Amino acid sequence: MSSHHIVRDDQEPALIIANGASCSSELLGQLLEWSPLVIVLDSAIERVMQLDIKVDVLLGDFDRGFDTKKYEELQYPIEIVYTPDQNKTDLEKAFDYLIERKIPAVNVVWATGRRADHTITNLTNIVRFKDLIKIVILDDYSKIFQLPQHFQKWYTANTNISLIPVGVVSGIYSENLVYPLKDDTLTIGYRTGSSNAVANDGIVTISHEKGDLLMMECIDIF
Amino acid sequence: MSSHHIVRDDQEPALIIANGASCSSELLGQLLEWSPLVIVLDSAIERVMQLDIKVDVLLGDFDRGFDTKKYEELQYPIEIVYTPDQNKTDLEKAFDYLIERKIPAVNVVWATGRRADHTITNLTNIVRFKDLIKIVILDDYSKIFQLPQHFQKWYTANTNISLIPVGVVSGIYSENLVYPLKDDTLTIGYRTGSSNAVANDGIVTISHEKGDLLMMECIDIF
Repeated sequence: MSSHHIVRDDQEPALIIANGASCSSELLGQLLEWSPLVIVLDSAIERVMQLDIKVDVLLGDFDRGFDTKKYEELQYPIEIVYTPDQNKTDLEKAFDYLIERKIPAVNVVWATGRRADHTITNLTNIVRFKDLIKIVILDDYSKIFQLPQHFQKWYTANTNISLIPVGVVSGIYSENLVYPLKDDTLTIGYRTGSSNAVANDGIVTISHEKGDLLMMECIDIF
Repeated sequence: MSSHHIVRDDQEPALIIANGASCSSELLGQLLEWSPLVIVLDSAIERVMQLDIKVDVLLGDFDRGFDTKKYEELQYPIEIVYTPDQNKTDLEKAFDYLIERKIPAVNVVWATGRRADHTITNLTNIVRFKDLIKIVILDDYSKIFQLPQHFQKWYTANTNISLIPVGVVSGIYSENLVYPLKDDTLTIGYRTGSSNAVANDGIVTISHEKGDLLMMECIDIF
């Protein structure tokens, strides 16, 4: 078991392990380093049990009838959160749970890969939690989060940056990108800001007036 | 080499092998069975060469400077299509190429997985080719295509069906789904029709009035 039984500062981002493709143990190890509150979604617990991780919360509708009792013993103490609501995904229910506990930020892994419907839903549904909790989705190739209306961050030159509109996003301006935006409108399916990049080492500024804009920092691994 | 040097009927769907995660050899084998025109995107050719497949077209901007000459010899005869336009993805350029050749339908593999920006762009950008070519994206978990305004198909009960709006889709009606839609509006990021299912063995009907609606038939593999 990892040694994160120490007293937690609930201001640290929590960690949700969802039910898509597993990530590298390096990425998972980095995220576990700060002893976050660890929430596992439904049957992902079966894969997590092979990884020697202490789980704090197991959340799901458990509709494939597996035995949560077993995990109550193996992961003692663990909170079991039963969420039968069929109108929300398990990931949305986990966000609701964290918001209820007033946890301000969360990293999410295993939310991409496998079923394409789950991937696209997980990536785009984060926008409905915009002012409620800070969400970052990570996999081995990608770091994804929603941009605030005014965003600034230091990047090295040539970093891949993709701006993905969830719907229509207007009034977009950028500074220090290879393909600059100036009062631009992006529309999912028709005009996206995929495959842009940072022009020079330094601050990148991206602002937008209306709509929900996702930032994807992605890398190629060969 | 696979034995598809026979005379082709260009009415068969072509096959694009894109640059995301590889699919199972079973899926690829099924799609190659009908001897389609095979188009490989850019550096994916390096992975394809390990699979003993005859490639007809290699398309890309080749910006990582690999030697197309090598593939001209190893895959003779092969058409090399150099597409430097930075305003389109390689996948969009491959659709343009097929439309130019008046090929009416295409299956696409390796278009999901790996970089999340590429996955979401590949899945949602198919809507701009709606009336130009029939596109189906496949991976080991998913079959994705855009729905016509009136859609009917026979399914077995409990088949997973996800309806993903690319933007806003209105006037949606369904018959024979577990969660029926009746003059519904779906909005990406806010209200999607993910994780629906077929109610009974038989015809499923889905119609919509406005917008671009993706059908995702997805399976869980454990």
